[in-house]
Amino acid sequence: MSEFSLIDRFFSNIGKAKEDVIIDIGDDAAVVDVSQKKRLAISVDTFVEGVHFPAQTRAYDIGWKSLAVNLSDMAAMGAKPLWVTLAITLPKQDDEWLAEFSRGFNDLAIRFDVRLIGGDTTRGPLSVTVNIFGDSSESSGLVRSAAKPGDKIYVSGFLGDAALGLQSFSKQLPLTTTEQHGLQFKLNRPIPRVKEVLALKSFINSSIDISDGLYADLNHILSASGVGALVYINQIPVSREYQWCCNGLQSYDVALTGGDDYELCVTVSAEKEAQFLDCTEQFETPWSCIGEIKAEQGLLLLNANYEEYRVAGHAYDHFLSDS
Amino acid sequence: MSEFSLIDRFFSNIGKAKEDVIIDIGDDAAVVDVSQKKRLAISVDTFVEGVHFPAQTRAYDIGWKSLAVNLSDMAAMGAKPLWVTLAITLPKQDDEWLAEFSRGFNDLAIRFDVRLIGGDTTRGPLSVTVNIFGDSSESSGLVRSAAKPGDKIYVSGFLGDAALGLQSFSKQLPLTTTEQHGLQFKLNRPIPRVKEVLALKSFINSSIDISDGLYADLNHILSASGVGALVYINQIPVSREYQWCCNGLQSYDVALTGGDDYELCVTVSAEKEAQFLDCTEQFETPWSCIGEIKAEQGLLLLNANYEEYRVAGHAYDHFLSDS
Repeated sequence: MSEFSLIDRFFSNIGKAKEDVIIDIGDDAAVVDVSQKKRLAISVDTFVEGVHFPAQTRAYDIGWKSLAVNLSDMAAMGAKPLWVTLAITLPKQDDEWLAEFSRGFNDLAIRFDVRLIGGDTTRGPLSVTVNIFGDSSESSGLVRSAAKPGDKIYVSGFLGDAALGLQSFSKQLPLTTTEQHGLQFKLNRPIPRVKEVLALKSFINSSIDISDGLYADLNHILSASGVGALVYINQIPVSREYQWCCNGLQSYDVALTGGDDYELCVTVSAEKEAQFLDCTEQFETPWSCIGEIKAEQGLLLLNANYEEYRVAGHAYDHFLSDS
Repeated sequence: MSEFSLIDRFFSNIGKAKEDVIIDIGDDAAVVDVSQKKRLAISVDTFVEGVHFPAQTRAYDIGWKSLAVNLSDMAAMGAKPLWVTLAITLPKQDDEWLAEFSRGFNDLAIRFDVRLIGGDTTRGPLSVTVNIFGDSSESSGLVRSAAKPGDKIYVSGFLGDAALGLQSFSKQLPLTTTEQHGLQFKLNRPIPRVKEVLALKSFINSSIDISDGLYADLNHILSASGVGALVYINQIPVSREYQWCCNGLQSYDVALTGGDDYELCVTVSAEKEAQFLDCTEQFETPWSCIGEIKAEQGLLLLNANYEEYRVAGHAYDHFLSDS
């Protein structure tokens, strides 16, 4: 039983269905009609010590990342972030920790112009839950379920660095200390692709943020859209540090299954691809085409020799080991 | 350092101030302008095992109460509840627990016509965070800060039963098993006063829900409004079971400082009091006048002989013992 089927089984139909709920539980965010001209995207994510971040993570980084993860959900939905609420559970009051946490949270809030409007502090094992609210009025918003056969599949940035950053805490990587710190920085300070997606969304058919790894998240798009895909794994964008670490036989597994990148995976129809690419040029972040949506179901990965590539790992799932 | 000053010190000004935020962090809920004609009230509360509920609490009751607490915040703001999100952290997957939790949550959701629109399930120590969204458009909504000298102070229901219900788990009370179960039921299955407040709100000046005990919560109204109050403690409504348990010298302390009642404390101007009372008659829940708002600061408690009464206990505060 996975996290996704847990939500399906126990929580997919709580309360009566409502006409003003445009997108219900199950996407990166819900979308509700607030008035005739206004739609809000709403999303929630929890961050637990020892599960979502190692115990040695700095308070500043926990503050930053707990907001970044939620901003990334707004990016995936093509919504403009507006407000957030924060529920924080702490084992004991620690002023230094709280000051650093709120500094990290605030630095990202200022950068993306969101306001903290509600909070709850309680005593208990460290965890942080953020709810975010975004404006989804201007267009119908982006969803996972609108990928069409023929769409090109694009991803932003470089994949797998965050997962290597996490590995670097416990494993000897063939990198300098500076390079390892660089990967840990990618793990702890993701930059959600909000600005990019607000500029690009009119060229995008479907979208998801890569929090559980490309392989799992692209599969969410495919199953929600009822389509399949072909992905050329050697076109998956990876950093120089990644190449140094992962030059073995399974060299793309970390980029395919490592979580925490918070890059976007989008599909773009062939006729809008040129406009999409023109528009991406205003941003530093690279966008790479990694494959194509197909009518036939299933996700087929091909290596540089056009042979099928099989993934050894699988996406991180909180409850998978209970099944 | 208390929970309230924690929020003030570290979280009261995160992100840039925004014109569309009508009520910022610090009340029972935030209120935001979503469009010209629509305001939303937004609130968040976390529930931690061993802090907010004893470890033996049934999953059904945790589901019920985690939603009830948030519905009560909407009642305090005079907002009509619409949607909720749920973030749930569990030590391990337990289908029976999840089925019971969601049944309790759903039973209350159906009763108050709210829809669960978003969720996150993670692994970790048991805790539940609910965000709730309500319509606050019709009037300006209710706040803590609008009590006026001369206002009568009313509370709904009976106070102190939930606190006695909690005590009954560890302490011998002079009650039958059935009576103790009744008090535990008040603790675990509060009925938020949403319907009452939506009918009554045009007669109310200020409002708060009694989650931390009447003494602490009335003080929140007084300090937010810059006023004082006189309370006649023998007018505080208590149940028959309460009277049997608390006939000692400190007999009103539990009703004054025990948390978890989720009744409402409101202030009503003298000219609207008759209309207010007429309107309360459609509900089973009694509303009791316990005193009056005064221009002079401070909360003065008087006993039946008009002598000053001093509270021995104080409100529950998650971080007070760290100060």
